[in-house]
Amino acid sequence: MLFRRPSIISRKEVAKLAGVSEATVSRVLNNVGPMKEETRERVLLAAAELGYVPNALAQQFARRKSGNIGVILPFVPKVHLFSTYYFSEILSGIGETAKRCGYDLLLIFREPDEARDYAKLFRTQKIDACIVLGSQNVPEERAALAELKAGGFPFCLVNQRYDEEQYATVDADHITGSMAVVRHLVERGRRKVAFVNGPAQYSNSADRLQGYKAALQEAGIPFRQQLVYTGNYSRKSGYELAEQIAKQIRDGSIDAVFAANDRMAIGLMQGLRELALEAGQHYALVGYDDSDGSRIISPRLSTVSVPFYEMGKLAAASLLDQARGDETDPLRQHVLPVSLVPRETS
Amino acid sequence: MLFRRPSIISRKEVAKLAGVSEATVSRVLNNVGPMKEETRERVLLAAAELGYVPNALAQQFARRKSGNIGVILPFVPKVHLFSTYYFSEILSGIGETAKRCGYDLLLIFREPDEARDYAKLFRTQKIDACIVLGSQNVPEERAALAELKAGGFPFCLVNQRYDEEQYATVDADHITGSMAVVRHLVERGRRKVAFVNGPAQYSNSADRLQGYKAALQEAGIPFRQQLVYTGNYSRKSGYELAEQIAKQIRDGSIDAVFAANDRMAIGLMQGLRELALEAGQHYALVGYDDSDGSRIISPRLSTVSVPFYEMGKLAAASLLDQARGDETDPLRQHVLPVSLVPRETS
Repeated sequence: MLFRRPSIISRKEVAKLAGVSEATVSRVLNNVGPMKEETRERVLLAAAELGYVPNALAQQFARRKSGNIGVILPFVPKVHLFSTYYFSEILSGIGETAKRCGYDLLLIFREPDEARDYAKLFRTQKIDACIVLGSQNVPEERAALAELKAGGFPFCLVNQRYDEEQYATVDADHITGSMAVVRHLVERGRRKVAFVNGPAQYSNSADRLQGYKAALQEAGIPFRQQLVYTGNYSRKSGYELAEQIAKQIRDGSIDAVFAANDRMAIGLMQGLRELALEAGQHYALVGYDDSDGSRIISPRLSTVSVPFYEMGKLAAASLLDQARGDETDPLRQHVLPVSLVPRETS
Repeated sequence: MLFRRPSIISRKEVAKLAGVSEATVSRVLNNVGPMKEETRERVLLAAAELGYVPNALAQQFARRKSGNIGVILPFVPKVHLFSTYYFSEILSGIGETAKRCGYDLLLIFREPDEARDYAKLFRTQKIDACIVLGSQNVPEERAALAELKAGGFPFCLVNQRYDEEQYATVDADHITGSMAVVRHLVERGRRKVAFVNGPAQYSNSADRLQGYKAALQEAGIPFRQQLVYTGNYSRKSGYELAEQIAKQIRDGSIDAVFAANDRMAIGLMQGLRELALEAGQHYALVGYDDSDGSRIISPRLSTVSVPFYEMGKLAAASLLDQARGDETDPLRQHVLPVSLVPRETS
């Protein structure tokens, strides 16, 4: 059956009041085919007057509920976002829980320079709750999040914390993870460990730097700024560091590299290979994420396993608890454990 | 500013008619904080009576527009859908175009046994247009699509055709692609080419089988049913075929394998390696998709490059043309070219 009657008022009554045929009422209410604006309005007004509930949008309007969980994602033209392990795994986890709870996922792509009116998504009932991925510590973002909090809208951050403000967060223990990497390299006899980090506006970059420094200190190795490089978590940014790092490997000032994610590690590994330096042979290399790529590249990349899929599931679950009012601590900070996965490159 | 007034009727007038404070009106209209149901209804009724448009949901109700493109996806518990190259690339393409046109993406996960009331998504104004991914030729799916077509709702299929019914479709030329694979293997001196296909309910599986048969015929090689295997496009399903195929490689009845996607090819390659058979050495292997995995696995996998990202972009673009009434042929069938990428395994 194409049309269903969700209330006790009939289309017939709406048609009578509007002075149109029942078929016209159906066409208007189901938004089918071309229609004079005036006729459409007459039908909608008549339906409203009689309290006819033509569809779930009207029901949602009454209930103030969209049935959608919003996911805010950074948008970078030409970057195949869903094809990055990090986002694809988190989204898979969010999707699994959302589906199980009867929600659909509304993906909202945020451009770097775009106004960030996240609260509007709630005010306009596009979403009932929202997860912010790739949140960055910049003033516009902090303002948008503060407005969400002030409005009492349920939301949650994944893999990002703000020291100034407390928000519901699902994160992984990147400090411990990074310490484990450096300890592992030191145990393997490496003392000149370079660090290729991501941008500083991500708290998880800061966490990794903190872990790197702490483990060096623990091993009695002085921290040296000239061994710290910054990429942008892309493969290309790792690749482009190869020349500089090759020089330092050749002059003996680097014997191992810790890259803050697998993509940068793999890019660097390919760049260094073109310069005749092999991971696991001329230098030790450890990435971070335990992505598909790290498992099938040759030599297989040592890395840190991060439960992104579980983080996504947990973010959605804690959010729905918030939305239902079942969460006793709406600002709960979840931190999931990570684990070192040593492979051939170290 | 947290609240904006999108119409000429003021909150003050709504408050007066409802007999509540202006702050209460704001709280109701912005759905903030707890509220007696009776008060909430009084405010909503007063707002409706005065024609106060509190938010975009009401505006959407008037305009019948959600601003969302729906993407219907198959849901399989525990399968990290976004982490499969096929879906992640198509979604990246859809997302790029949707974003550029000011639309958000609503992801709707469909369980295999769930009722498929796609038209309801339009009737309830959750979406303005929709793309169906992983559509299968089964009766419930055909009925749901026929209802969409009958209702005049703009929709589009990606990588699936129905011979019985014509729908707007974006597909790739898998017949030519599969012929290219077999021709390539025959040119390399292989005459005993096994074929690991996907399930028959996908038209693109049927296309590949057709291409496989056509190329064999062209080369004067008889088609042999016992060289055709069926997986389900997962890595595991390829892996599980290794034992049977190993036997046929050893007894000389197979000297090459064409797998209908890279995941199955990679699974099979790993399974055969555990049985001491190496791709490119003991047998030739060609996959399909040109996924990230095919490029970084060792030995690098020969494959067929499919423009999934462009297919996603095109699907979204043609859909928005339909929705705007700019598409002269709303049942247009796009077929994009594919290309063979020979690498080390063949």
